[in-house]
Amino acid sequence: MTPQPNPQAGAAVKAADRAHVFHSWSAQDLIDPLAVAGAEGSYFWDYDGRRYLDFTSGLVFTNIGYQHPKVVAAIQEQAAKMTTFAPAFAVEARSEAARLIAERTPGDLDKIFFTNGGADAVEHAVRMARLHTGRPKVLSAYRSYHGGTQQAINLTGDPRRWASDGAAAGVVHFWAPFLYRSRFYAETEEQETARALEHLETTIAFEGPGTVAAIVLETIPGTAGIMVPPAGYLAGVRELCDRYGIVFVLDEVMAGFGRTGEWFAADLFGVVPDLMTFAKGVNSGYVPLGGVAIGPEIAETFARRPYPGGLTYSGHPLACAAAVATIDVMAEEGVVENAKRLGAEVVGPALAALAERHPSVGEVRGVGMFWALDLVRNRATREPLVPYNAAGETNAAMAAFGAAAKKQGLWPFVNMNRTHVVPPCNVSEAELKEGFAALDAALSVADEFTVA
Amino acid sequence: MTPQPNPQAGAAVKAADRAHVFHSWSAQDLIDPLAVAGAEGSYFWDYDGRRYLDFTSGLVFTNIGYQHPKVVAAIQEQAAKMTTFAPAFAVEARSEAARLIAERTPGDLDKIFFTNGGADAVEHAVRMARLHTGRPKVLSAYRSYHGGTQQAINLTGDPRRWASDGAAAGVVHFWAPFLYRSRFYAETEEQETARALEHLETTIAFEGPGTVAAIVLETIPGTAGIMVPPAGYLAGVRELCDRYGIVFVLDEVMAGFGRTGEWFAADLFGVVPDLMTFAKGVNSGYVPLGGVAIGPEIAETFARRPYPGGLTYSGHPLACAAAVATIDVMAEEGVVENAKRLGAEVVGPALAALAERHPSVGEVRGVGMFWALDLVRNRATREPLVPYNAAGETNAAMAAFGAAAKKQGLWPFVNMNRTHVVPPCNVSEAELKEGFAALDAALSVADEFTVA
Repeated sequence: MTPQPNPQAGAAVKAADRAHVFHSWSAQDLIDPLAVAGAEGSYFWDYDGRRYLDFTSGLVFTNIGYQHPKVVAAIQEQAAKMTTFAPAFAVEARSEAARLIAERTPGDLDKIFFTNGGADAVEHAVRMARLHTGRPKVLSAYRSYHGGTQQAINLTGDPRRWASDGAAAGVVHFWAPFLYRSRFYAETEEQETARALEHLETTIAFEGPGTVAAIVLETIPGTAGIMVPPAGYLAGVRELCDRYGIVFVLDEVMAGFGRTGEWFAADLFGVVPDLMTFAKGVNSGYVPLGGVAIGPEIAETFARRPYPGGLTYSGHPLACAAAVATIDVMAEEGVVENAKRLGAEVVGPALAALAERHPSVGEVRGVGMFWALDLVRNRATREPLVPYNAAGETNAAMAAFGAAAKKQGLWPFVNMNRTHVVPPCNVSEAELKEGFAALDAALSVADEFTVA
Repeated sequence: MTPQPNPQAGAAVKAADRAHVFHSWSAQDLIDPLAVAGAEGSYFWDYDGRRYLDFTSGLVFTNIGYQHPKVVAAIQEQAAKMTTFAPAFAVEARSEAARLIAERTPGDLDKIFFTNGGADAVEHAVRMARLHTGRPKVLSAYRSYHGGTQQAINLTGDPRRWASDGAAAGVVHFWAPFLYRSRFYAETEEQETARALEHLETTIAFEGPGTVAAIVLETIPGTAGIMVPPAGYLAGVRELCDRYGIVFVLDEVMAGFGRTGEWFAADLFGVVPDLMTFAKGVNSGYVPLGGVAIGPEIAETFARRPYPGGLTYSGHPLACAAAVATIDVMAEEGVVENAKRLGAEVVGPALAALAERHPSVGEVRGVGMFWALDLVRNRATREPLVPYNAAGETNAAMAAFGAAAKKQGLWPFVNMNRTHVVPPCNVSEAELKEGFAALDAALSVADEFTVA
């Protein structure tokens, strides 16, 4: 894994990219994508031989790192055996992936509907909830991300929704708990929980309980800021759902499959939803795969009545074989336990130490391999280091932070005024320490943008 | 490829499927999925050693058949090299796939936005059109299928839309040409074309030309019945789009990549849309992949303004490597030409001969490896062999036809009152003849349901 420089090959890859690849979430002429030559474990490298420690896990999906040999071998074997087959049939990799996932999902979520990724998983979960209840509305949270397709982006509570909000009929946004930036003027976790639940119940009351099909929540909101919900909140939402006959959907696309140091984040809170979406970590993103885990009530609804939804690649054999191998590797190698242990013993303390040294760090929050540093101009006022949805000049502080991290050989996850520490769940302690040293230097750059 | 019976293994696969896999478009307790043990070329086989000639190409996606050794090898090589990487970077397989696709797309559709499949390709094409025009409405056709996610299913013009139609704001359905079951009382192709265009223009006028962002059409509608549009229709739609500043979206998810005997069905008609969606045949479904090919006007719109859409697996390296290999194989082995030649010289004449012998065949239509037999109770009245959206008892004739085909070792594509002949594009003449013999026997069963 020593990267060999090959700038000429890199230039060709880059030229074809700029000529023909239309990139997600971007102004095509204003981006300059790095050409990546290779990747292994927690690292990737470019064509100039520069190597980066990846604290992003891609887009928080390589939970077992890049190129795990056992999963690569399983993909190769499945490709040789049966790379694809239509969804209406029973095939071994599909059956086995469903069985292994159902074994691990919380409670009685025992039926698995496979999709290609997280967005379509959310799309189908919402459709199931609407048809199960016969109700039109779906409640979701500000500060959330649920995917890029029409229904999923309308549920999303970040600026990526704005341009797509033409067809949001039936979606209502509410505020979830987030003590550091409380919408409820709370001063303690208990207050935040109680007031967030009261806010949600009032929202339900004023929308009409009989009109609400589902409440959709990321168990721990991911891209929006890794706000671990306070004790009692998710149990309280479960109770509200039960009281009003609302389907409780937990979105574990990012938080699931070991990211939080549990197989699913719901396990941290002892809560069982009616539907749970997943993707990313299910096979470390090695082959596109997502899905919905379905509890018994909704399974019963579609036992003798057709579920009106589907897709060509539902339960794609190659993707499912990668899931089987990934789950096996995670179990054999203690990947979930590694995330839990290093999260508690190494990441938490190290980030707390960084926060002590750097005035730009307003809050450290997280669990397992799922952490955020909330960067601020001023610790007392908690004013974010850059404004909400900043770009260009107004985003200078975060741009400088990101550039400084890369200069140190660390590829950081940067979103708004935050950096997330989301390395692979099988990252080593040495790699983490290397990353924290780089973060230390980059935070010194962020510190320059703080005000007394 | 001699299937070895192994009923015990099949029973285990089936048991896990029934316990844990939630299937697309199905009442879960009323289905009985066949457990499939293997597949190669144009055939697949079950665990009892029964082999089937696949006249469905899966769900019309295995355009190069199952397990093509060169594409399997390319998947294995890419898995060893770089199975996954995040979409914001330039990577070789992604660049190369985009370049090869852009080389083949009609006209100046030179930028490729990759998705996971056809549904999200349609979702993003519609978003691009709405943002490009600033207009809210999208026009699509009855008798169409565009995908299973919220926006895509609402554009769809078949019964799968019905249960999901809660949020169809902004979608207007119109009738496309279909002379055999003309909505316009036409008696000639010329009449059908003129009247269908007049119907579309009147629809635009009454919806308000300044409110219509896009017209979305399958170039040749697929699952809805393979209605090859009459001469002049698509050129007429192109003209209407130009006249009213409407984005013309052609959906080639099923019709593209060789299916019609051209790289894209649009090539049959000399028409260049503003956006074109693809999936399935792009890599024969070996790894989930779809996308939107984007013309220069819409590319320009998002050159300096961010496109607000994306997905974790956009341009997934493994999927893109499979596309590169598939396109190479299709070019090297003349797969597109094979579909064109055998379509014209073998399939067309053979189906015409079957129609002559079987009173249940009302119409034969198609091109390349993309054909439909429209089955009828009565040739004179053209009454469909089963009613629209039939199920259970009312669908007995089609169920009997399908069972008879399978008994002959042919796996048929059956939808409503039609069977489609959609084998791999590299099918051999001998395989086609084997299939037609089976169809012949199965159509004799369908004949029993006709009335004088």
